Amino acid sequence: MNLPSNKPNFLILAGGSGTRFWPLSRRANPKQCLELYGGKSMLEHTIDRVKIQSQRTQRYLVFGPHLVDKLADHDALSIIEPSARNTAPAIALGALIADHFDPGAPIVVLPSDHFVGDVEAFSDDINTASKFAKKGKIVTIGIPPTRPETGFGYIKKGDAFSEGFVVDRFVEKPDFATAVNYLATGDYVWNAGMFVFTYETLLSEIKKQLPGMVSGLTKIKAVLTQTAPKNWEVASDLVRETISKEFQSFERISIDFGIMENGENIVVLPASFPWSDLGHWAAMADVRTANSEGNIVHRNDEENTFFHASQNNVVSVSSDRFVAIVGINDVVLVETDDALLLIPKSKCQDVREVVSYLSEHKSELI
Amino acid sequence: MNLPSNKPNFLILAGGSGTRFWPLSRRANPKQCLELYGGKSMLEHTIDRVKIQSQRTQRYLVFGPHLVDKLADHDALSIIEPSARNTAPAIALGALIADHFDPGAPIVVLPSDHFVGDVEAFSDDINTASKFAKKGKIVTIGIPPTRPETGFGYIKKGDAFSEGFVVDRFVEKPDFATAVNYLATGDYVWNAGMFVFTYETLLSEIKKQLPGMVSGLTKIKAVLTQTAPKNWEVASDLVRETISKEFQSFERISIDFGIMENGENIVVLPASFPWSDLGHWAAMADVRTANSEGNIVHRNDEENTFFHASQNNVVSVSSDRFVAIVGINDVVLVETDDALLLIPKSKCQDVREVVSYLSEHKSELI
Repeated sequence: MNLPSNKPNFLILAGGSGTRFWPLSRRANPKQCLELYGGKSMLEHTIDRVKIQSQRTQRYLVFGPHLVDKLADHDALSIIEPSARNTAPAIALGALIADHFDPGAPIVVLPSDHFVGDVEAFSDDINTASKFAKKGKIVTIGIPPTRPETGFGYIKKGDAFSEGFVVDRFVEKPDFATAVNYLATGDYVWNAGMFVFTYETLLSEIKKQLPGMVSGLTKIKAVLTQTAPKNWEVASDLVRETISKEFQSFERISIDFGIMENGENIVVLPASFPWSDLGHWAAMADVRTANSEGNIVHRNDEENTFFHASQNNVVSVSSDRFVAIVGINDVVLVETDDALLLIPKSKCQDVREVVSYLSEHKSELI
Repeated sequence: MNLPSNKPNFLILAGGSGTRFWPLSRRANPKQCLELYGGKSMLEHTIDRVKIQSQRTQRYLVFGPHLVDKLADHDALSIIEPSARNTAPAIALGALIADHFDPGAPIVVLPSDHFVGDVEAFSDDINTASKFAKKGKIVTIGIPPTRPETGFGYIKKGDAFSEGFVVDRFVEKPDFATAVNYLATGDYVWNAGMFVFTYETLLSEIKKQLPGMVSGLTKIKAVLTQTAPKNWEVASDLVRETISKEFQSFERISIDFGIMENGENIVVLPASFPWSDLGHWAAMADVRTANSEGNIVHRNDEENTFFHASQNNVVSVSSDRFVAIVGINDVVLVETDDALLLIPKSKCQDVREVVSYLSEHKSELI
């Protein structure tokens, strides 16, 4: 019998279906599936990034049934959410499963579609966080802010704690003035959705804050113990049926609202790696090198793109069309097989206006 | 035997190979072949416009061999320029042929790719011009200017002459300040390349100003007389061979430089019809109705285009792609099977930068 491992298992949340990279991203081909840089999908980058630490442990992907075709073949085990119930149920289920097959090991929850610029620094931070997690902490890795971003939640740092800080509080997405203030004080980091804990710690918080989930989790654990699969891949139909049944009763709530905002023993470790959530087209500048005029071209044959008197544009082209941009600055132009988008970089968030229109008039395009 | 007709024959210059509507226009598919409005090509509009007056006379198209596939099937007779030698040789040849089959009738020279907004007013102006032409005048129909355009040549009006004016002089494309002055004085009209004359009048000017062409024209006339075809369509190979041979010796010169600038008996009739040369993408506003936000959509299925917070754009789409324009004003976006162009309306002339690049690197795209 092995002693509980210090090596973490990874729980990668891959169920997102954002359309902020529309028209390239679609419900059935969300951002985590897109090759936005480096010739791999965001999810493939994420898996590669954690492989170093999970060679002897496991990588789990959590996602919904509609993404099975897209995600099941990755170098990780699939945990299918029977329905979309936000992140707290998905994480609780995944953590239960990961812990069942590697009891007591730290569990690292990660988004599947973020950029990390320094894998070694990332690994070091994960190791540090895992160490805290083994001591009963819930660790969140926060991103030191570089701009007054209003699109993220923030975490206010409290007292110093080893390499990190006790969490003073989680705060909602701020307005701009507040974000400017957060940035100025130096007391805040971005909440990037990265959490490290043991299942035991998580469960004790669930018992306090989301007690309605305890019964279901207990039943799933029982049937796993009873059917004793060697690993998650060979879990029985009975296990999957039990999950399907119990998951329906879990409260729809995010891990932030459900656990973090009122949790005890929560610490934050400021990330030591460059990071981007790649939240919209303009953020391509975070992950790709621009040409000398600041233009970023995302396509197979970059030579098929011609810029004249044009700067700081983002162009994504799926076909082999020749693209000519003349006298235009600071826009995003995206071409796919069935759609074309033109939008200023500063208004990338307004892609939602298109998606909203399409959901009413041409839902096959989202 | 018929008396010489007062009804004009039409000589439509269809050899242009402009690329200002790139990527829709190409060398092998120039602007006169494009359906930019009204479901017909510019040339078809031009032919339809003159049919009223040429039911008992003839319409001739003059163009080069590379456009035979595109233009030969139109409701007009084709005169092939053996090589591109600018407009004076093309017009002289066409006028000789038109006159041979309808001696003494006025000949109306027209561009093939301009917009005319009122066919009845146009017809009236042609009739008036034809009347002057029968009296030995060379008549040019000038366009009263509506803006200080620097892209056209101008004609300075002299003394009043019947419904028109004696031409004081033809002037080159002005700089902006000069154009502003021309507009302010009211003494100038745009040279739109529309001329009406009899062949006899033209030939007398050719004898004075371009005497090198006389021998060739005489030989072509002789072989036409000798072989006596019933109409141009059944002209013999000998006629065509003679034209090929003699045309090579014609001076490469425009009708403006070669004849008009120093001609005698030249009068100008200010046009009474709305007109546009449709010289670039932004001029689509001259021929198509914009939506309530000032956007012009040129495609089969306009419903496939979505604008949000976007005004005064011109969008031309060849495919059935859904196109979304968000937060963008005053640009031209053109999509064809093999190319995509994005350019501000105010810089449409800079399409030439693209064409120039392509001529060096990807000439198959122009």
